[in-house]
Parts: sequence; structure tokens; C-alpha cells
Amino acid sequence: MSLNETHDAGLRSWVASANTGASDFPIQNLPFAVFRRAGSQEAWRGGVAIGDQVLDLARASALKALGDAVQPQLEAASQQHLNGFMAMGPAAWSALRLALSRALREGAAAQAALQDCLVAQSDVEYTVPAQVGDYTDFYTSVHHATNVGKLFRPDNPLMENYKWVPIGYHGRASSLRVSGVDFRRPMGQLKAPDAAAPALKPCARLDYELEMGIYTGAGNAWGEAISMDEAENHIFGLCLLNDWSARDIQAWEYQPLGPFLSKNFATTVSPWIVTLEALEPYRTAFTRPAADPQPLPYLSSPANSERGAFDVQLSVALETGRMRAEGQAAQQITHTSYRHAYWTMAQLVAHHSVNGCDLQPGDLLGTGTLSGPTSSEAGALLELTEGGKKPVALANGESRTFLQDGDAVILRGWCEKPGAARIGFGECRATVLPARQG
Amino acid sequence: MSLNETHDAGLRSWVASANTGASDFPIQNLPFAVFRRAGSQEAWRGGVAIGDQVLDLARASALKALGDAVQPQLEAASQQHLNGFMAMGPAAWSALRLALSRALREGAAAQAALQDCLVAQSDVEYTVPAQVGDYTDFYTSVHHATNVGKLFRPDNPLMENYKWVPIGYHGRASSLRVSGVDFRRPMGQLKAPDAAAPALKPCARLDYELEMGIYTGAGNAWGEAISMDEAENHIFGLCLLNDWSARDIQAWEYQPLGPFLSKNFATTVSPWIVTLEALEPYRTAFTRPAADPQPLPYLSSPANSERGAFDVQLSVALETGRMRAEGQAAQQITHTSYRHAYWTMAQLVAHHSVNGCDLQPGDLLGTGTLSGPTSSEAGALLELTEGGKKPVALANGESRTFLQDGDAVILRGWCEKPGAARIGFGECRATVLPARQG
Repeated sequence: MSLNETHDAGLRSWVASANTGASDFPIQNLPFAVFRRAGSQEAWRGGVAIGDQVLDLARASALKALGDAVQPQLEAASQQHLNGFMAMGPAAWSALRLALSRALREGAAAQAALQDCLVAQSDVEYTVPAQVGDYTDFYTSVHHATNVGKLFRPDNPLMENYKWVPIGYHGRASSLRVSGVDFRRPMGQLKAPDAAAPALKPCARLDYELEMGIYTGAGNAWGEAISMDEAENHIFGLCLLNDWSARDIQAWEYQPLGPFLSKNFATTVSPWIVTLEALEPYRTAFTRPAADPQPLPYLSSPANSERGAFDVQLSVALETGRMRAEGQAAQQITHTSYRHAYWTMAQLVAHHSVNGCDLQPGDLLGTGTLSGPTSSEAGALLELTEGGKKPVALANGESRTFLQDGDAVILRGWCEKPGAARIGFGECRATVLPARQG
Repeated sequence: MSLNETHDAGLRSWVASANTGASDFPIQNLPFAVFRRAGSQEAWRGGVAIGDQVLDLARASALKALGDAVQPQLEAASQQHLNGFMAMGPAAWSALRLALSRALREGAAAQAALQDCLVAQSDVEYTVPAQVGDYTDFYTSVHHATNVGKLFRPDNPLMENYKWVPIGYHGRASSLRVSGVDFRRPMGQLKAPDAAAPALKPCARLDYELEMGIYTGAGNAWGEAISMDEAENHIFGLCLLNDWSARDIQAWEYQPLGPFLSKNFATTVSPWIVTLEALEPYRTAFTRPAADPQPLPYLSSPANSERGAFDVQLSVALETGRMRAEGQAAQQITHTSYRHAYWTMAQLVAHHSVNGCDLQPGDLLGTGTLSGPTSSEAGALLELTEGGKKPVALANGESRTFLQDGDAVILRGWCEKPGAARIGFGECRATVLPARQG
């Protein structure tokens, strides 16, 4: 994959809202989602974001509006789940992107046909865009691992294996929900350190985790590994991901087999998947401190070192119930970048498959909480508040150690730099509802 | 659920092989699988075991051979995945079981029609019988937890949470395979305690784990919990499950987020699912030592205490490559019972959903390794050999600490007691193939 005409920062669309410079979705982005008109019983189908509109791919496919050459991809990307399109691989994805870019440019002959395929984003609802066979969550921020390790294991914050093994574990696929779906505060076993016994209570230390989600494309045959040189060809694109976490449930349950009920009550993903090709201008070098061990050969390649990381800027905003009631805007509490991750996407894919584990199209890999190197770049309240000891002060006089009922958390992601078009991920939002009674 | 005419030990089938007393599949069992003729391109479809035959449910459904009342269930159980049938719930499952029992009895009028729906088990191949949305593995044997804990954490073998929390974690759904599918020894990062760095090598401490798998029926709404009183209504049935484990990969990778590549290369399930109703005669009391804490209220019910455990006898046999070459039978190396588990199936379901996590039809819950109270009842080589220190001696002069290439592991399960028909689970078998080269 390399830069091509679709990345040209000078491109403009006949959809005027894409050309403002402020939209997450200029013609250089072209991310995919699955949508329908809000509140309708219409079929879910694939769409591409352009400015403040969704291009309805099912309708474009019915009209054969992009030509015969990409009609198979267009049909696959029109379905209620994008798995079939994801399975087609980079050449197919790239061909559809090019056709969409050309058809949406100012002056395109396709404008007449496609004009009728637009639906305003304000009029639609989304769903999780793939049938996720397995959801794996990694732990790729050494800053997060160190910050959390200090709280759970003061004497041993960063485990010996961290700098060798891209640590990961399996999460829950059934409780993945798309941005905008609110969820109940979970109940669970809580035990204070000095209590004689645990009790079933509503979680009192509810947290978010700022992550990116990686959707896989074509999988590997069971028993075969994916090499570093091939790994990125198995990645379709990225979304925002909030791995909601019940810290008190986690502390009591997680040994020796890892997090379970503290995580699997809800995981929120953004509707839009930004393709790896769209992110091409934002590649950056993957570096680690000289004193750290170099990755083992199966996790190493020159191309990965030179350009395997991605500079996706990320933010977390908090909107309390009071802010909402009083018409105040959400307050940003973190700003960091994905480029700080200790392991690249390619390394996650190579590691996950090295034992022959079969990845499938539409699997979801979470990066783990993407805390940056400084304390203001932390991707979870657990870290920002040092385990709940230092509340975060909000501009309206409120403060938070952990999330309260009615709090909404909004993740955002975007890429910008001189000479390239700014592209964004939209938002990943959900609100904490009160715990179930009884 | 209670004993009914389908459990009558005196029932005999017009399929003579079901009446020998030695078959795993007498008319009192009637387990479900998904099958087709071996080596064919036929559609996968549901079947029920009777003696040495499979009753082809798709053909029986096409003939409407069981009457209108159970035709919807019969159609659902005829599909390539049993999820739809599992979703129908206990009343539907029970009605189909009763209809099958009556139609397969000696003298049944349905014999003429059903005779033509039988396929010899020796002529068929199986597949994983459900589309498993999520696979969760628990840790329900306190004996296993203690034995393994001694090896991994000599100073802290049984964690403080064990007797309060049914410990579990999410496993990998994509690498589930049915009995008979062999798998490659996994590659992975191994690090000897005295080595300066890990290296990528074939697993040298490959192990099996003797488990049962529990397929869920109808799920819960996201955000709602399943109570102890309702929990068993959400369980369709049980199979045998081998949670293959790479102990050396596990030791290096598992902290702090739990097992990952050490487990997700392969998990083998038996083709046949024995329904909870078929197991009804083998219920037994769920007891724990008087000194142990009683379960929290959400994990406790009088019915569960009185009859929430199941006395399923379990065995592990090893067939080395040499035994196979020399025509020797596999050697049994463990015999135990599921009744020793510290947590019941109902408790696993109630715990899994207490935080609102949504279970779905066809989810698979592993019990964890079902080691019994004595050392000869251990369900893994890690325990039988005390961490590889005491080899298991085999009758032909061979010995094993961990599995060698060419070794086949065969799990079996059955129930028997005076006054009830003996029923069995068939076998769960797979052979270790050499590691991938390069």
C-alpha cells in the first residue's frame, strides 16, 4: 500500500459538506459503516461517509453506479455485515476506494446517479458493522501497563514478559454495541480489602478505556501463521473502542485467569471503520527505547520499524448529567496519540497467529488502553485519578474519581498534518445508566 | 424438569444396537449432533444417536415423520447449526425428545418411515454442532485449581477469591474443532527461568485438559441477569471438551491478563450433545466442605444444593503412535467424575450473567479441568506428572511427561447406576501433529 491519487489533499467532493476542512469525512477518508434510517425497520446496509452524508451502498449497488469492475465489492460492502467485503482483501478494498473517490469528486459524471444515494447522517442509526467472530483485547501501551501495574501490583508494576510478548486476552463478542447505545452499570462481587467476605453490589469504580479497534480482513488457515510482511494485508481498518471496565469487580476476580465480568458487560465501538489505506499518510516509525529488547524475529520487519505505527490523535471527553441538563459542552479530559503504542498492528496480527490460531474476517482486535507517556495523556480514570485518590476537577465545579450514572464518555480520533487532508473517526459515545434493581 | 417415561430403564428400541447395554446411545439418551456422510459434499444437518446409527433429522423432517406437534422443533434441529433449536427452550426440547423416544421404541408405528432415515455412525463425519458466538472457560475444580496453583504459585496455590467467585475467562471460538480433527503442536514464545530472553519454538510441554462443555439455550436480554432458579432452563446440554494447553507458553504469557496463545490454537469437542433432560437420573447433591463459605445469594438456591450437580463419569485415554503402530489399545490414565466440581452449571450461568453480559443460544461454557480429589483423578498431565517431574509409565514400556507428536488423547464420559439406563457421550479424540516448519 502506498500513497495514491485518493490521498491528494487537493481533492474536493461535489458533496459540499466534505470540503470544509472541519469534517471528519472529507473525500480522502471514505470510511465504512452499517446503517439504516433512524427508527425505521429498513434493512441494515453498508454506507460510506462523505461530509455530513452517508452514501447508501446498497442503493448505489442496485443502480450499478460505480461500474462493472467494482460491482462485486460494492455488493459485498452493501450487506448488513461487512465480513464478506473484509474477506476480499486489499486489492478489492483499494479498487472500491478509488472508484468511490472518483465518483464523489467535483465534476464526476456519477454525481447524477449518486446524488440520489445520499442520506443525511443526522437521519440514520448504526449497528456494529461486522459479525465479530472473536474479539481479542491487547495491552499495547507500556504507559498504561506501567500505570495500572503500579496500582494492582506496587512491587511489580511491569511484568518481565511485557517487552517480549504482545500481551492479549479474549474478550466478549456478544456485548459489543455501537456508539449511542447506553448501558447499565454492572452488578458484581465486590470485596473491600478489609472485608471478611465479598457482596453483590453495583460497581462503584466504573471506568472507560480509550482504545482503537482493528477489524481483520481475510484470515489465515488454521495451523498457519501470518508473517510480519503479510500482516497488514490482513487488516481492514480501524475504529474507536471503549472497553468499559469495572475496576472493583476486576480487582477481586482477575487472578489467576484475567478480567472477565469486569469487562464483558459492554464494549462500545464507533460506527465508522477508517481503512488502513485512508490512514496511509499518517504512518510513522515504530521506535522503542534503545535499552529495551528488540522484538523477536517473528515480530520484526524493516518496513514495520520504518512505518508500522500510525499517528492517530485521540481524545476523551466527559459529559456529566449536569452538563447535559445545563447545556454545557462535554469537557475533554485526555488527548494522546496511537503512535505511542509499544506494539504495532502488524505485530498483533503476527503474534496472534504464530501458534496457528485462525483469525477470521471481521474479528476485532482491541489495542488496549492507549495511554501516552505523560499523566495527562492517560486513557482511563484509573490512571488519571491514580486509583481514585486524586479526583479530576471539571470546569463546572464537579469532579470525578470514577463514572457516575448519567455520565457520557465520548471518544474521538483524527489525523492531521501539513500537506495531508485531515480525516477523522467520528465519535464513540455511550452513557452510564443506573444499575439493575434487585 | 423431572423423570418421565423417556428415562424408563426398561425401554427398548427397534434399533437393536441400542439395546445391548453397552452402547453409549440407548433410547434413554438421544443426544444431538450435526453430521453428513463421511467424505461427501452433502449438507450438514442435525442427527440423533441411537445405538450405532444416526437418525437423520433432516430426512425425518422432510417426511414429517414425527407428527405436526413437533415439526417446528424437528425442522430447527435439522439445520447445519443447532442454535435455532437451542433457542427454543426446555419445553420444545422435551417435546421433541418424547416424540423421538416414542417413535424409536420397539413396536412404534413410525418405524417404517424412520427406518429409512438411519445412517450408520461408521459412515458419517461430524462438525461442531453450533455456531458458537462466545466460548467461555471456567475453573470449577478446586482440586485442579489447587494442583496447578502449587506449580505456578507455590506460595499461594488457591487464591482467596476461588471459593467465592466461579472463576472464568473468555476462550477462542474460531479454533474449536470437532473430535477427530488433528492439530499441529503450537509454536510460541518459550523462556526457561534461567534464560536471558525468550525464543520462538515448538511447545515442549503440550497437555490436554479433561473438561465438559455446556451449550446454552435461550439467552438473556443484555443488561438482565439469569437467576439461579431459571439458570438450568438456559442450558441445552453437555459434551466432552479437551482444552489443549501449551504449559510453557502459558507460564511465560499468562500474567497479568490470563491464558491466550497457550490455549487458543485448538479446543476439541465431542460431536454429541447429551441433553440436560437425558442426564436427569444422574443428578446429585452439590456439597462443599462445612468450613468453606456458602455461596452468595445470587449463586445459591435450595434446588441447586439438593440436585444441581451431575454424576458424569469421565476418563482420559492415551494412544501413542507406537501403540497405534503395534495395534495396542489406548491406555486409560484417568477416571473421575463431574460431580466433584466446586461450582454447578447453574452457578456458572447465574454468575456469567449477573453483570448483564448477554448469553446467546449456542454459546459454549467449558467447566475447566475436572480433576477429582485424588492424584489419580487428575485431568491433565501437568497434574499427573507434578509439573513434568514424575513421568506417567505406560504398560508398553513408554512413559510421558507431556504429549509427543503422534499421541492421541481420547476423552470419554458416561453415566450409570442401578435402576437407570447407562448413557454415554461417545468420545472426544484428536492427535498431535508435528509443529509447523519455519
